Amino acid sequence: MPRTGRRPGPGGTRERILAAARSDFSNAGYEGATIRGIAAQAKVDPALVLHYFESKDGVFRAAVQFPVDPAEFIPRLLAPGLDGLGVRLVRFFVETWDSPAGSPLLGVIRSVVGNDDAATLMREFVQRQVLGRIARALELDQPQLRASLAASQLIGLAMLRYVVKVEPLASARTDEIVGWLGPTVQRYLTDRDLAKPNPSSRGRR
Amino acid sequence: MPRTGRRPGPGGTRERILAAARSDFSNAGYEGATIRGIAAQAKVDPALVLHYFESKDGVFRAAVQFPVDPAEFIPRLLAPGLDGLGVRLVRFFVETWDSPAGSPLLGVIRSVVGNDDAATLMREFVQRQVLGRIARALELDQPQLRASLAASQLIGLAMLRYVVKVEPLASARTDEIVGWLGPTVQRYLTDRDLAKPNPSSRGRR
Repeated sequence: MPRTGRRPGPGGTRERILAAARSDFSNAGYEGATIRGIAAQAKVDPALVLHYFESKDGVFRAAVQFPVDPAEFIPRLLAPGLDGLGVRLVRFFVETWDSPAGSPLLGVIRSVVGNDDAATLMREFVQRQVLGRIARALELDQPQLRASLAASQLIGLAMLRYVVKVEPLASARTDEIVGWLGPTVQRYLTDRDLAKPNPSSRGRR
Repeated sequence: MPRTGRRPGPGGTRERILAAARSDFSNAGYEGATIRGIAAQAKVDPALVLHYFESKDGVFRAAVQFPVDPAEFIPRLLAPGLDGLGVRLVRFFVETWDSPAGSPLLGVIRSVVGNDDAATLMREFVQRQVLGRIARALELDQPQLRASLAASQLIGLAMLRYVVKVEPLASARTDEIVGWLGPTVQRYLTDRDLAKPNPSSRGRR
């Protein structure tokens, strides 16, 4: 993603913009934050924010250090249809973690777990940019639930494979992981019976 | 768990023993660590370690701050047989997190993610005390794989529900979560086709 990967300007301008963006996005939320407000806080011209990050989406993604662009990968995974979507999503997730683009991800997990502001920022980003995009494309009931269940399985895999390094998950091949987790993610995303109320608990809310 | 919950002795003896235990277990592993070595490092009598923690297992569990005793809950969940095991395990996991016993768990996740020694200690504990116990009881192929896949789904749920607090998982009722995740965990633990080699990848290791 060369567009958000430009070298730092003199005096760490890029980092100053990102610090301002993290503060503005976590205080005001995605809707409330503005390029103009971020620029003012970083004491730079708004045009410079756009020069480094192209758009509000771009600065948001760089602020949470998300290594791949949901506007690119989600439509690509969804394009062949719902059949096999679970397998494609698990494969993409593992391949991203195992690639050079995945190297910042451990740091992202550490900051999200260790810091409430980072967790708020990531929640906003994941719900809006990742789960929201998948949800809008699914055309099934409870899309936000489906997308967050799929995310729960993928994040849990990352925790055991890359953070705690539990075997055999830590050394398993991508194909094996796809075979184990693909059906889970497929069920969460597309099973029509998933979100039906559980008869034993109806009316207990 | 009153047995490992005794009040600190004079001068924080209990905390000193736990610090020595964390160091000994992460340097020497569970097999290599000894009550005698932990006591020597904490500069206390070995009898005092047993007074506070009863056994090597007890001091290990206290060292990783694991809030429930796998020697108790795993046989209880497995006792009714493999049918419904996924549902029972998911329910137990969510009920533990939502109970007072679960309040240290967020701190446990933070220290595991933020600190490689804590991650090593937790990996040793989870593989030996939790996954190993489940695996021995399953009497199916690849028990360690099955148990770690189940753990990946549960940890991922904890990340989204309790750490990042993504909706609708953050506010869902226990019964709903059991309905969504129970079949996943059941498949990982007991599906006989789970661990069959994927024909498309045979011989590629």
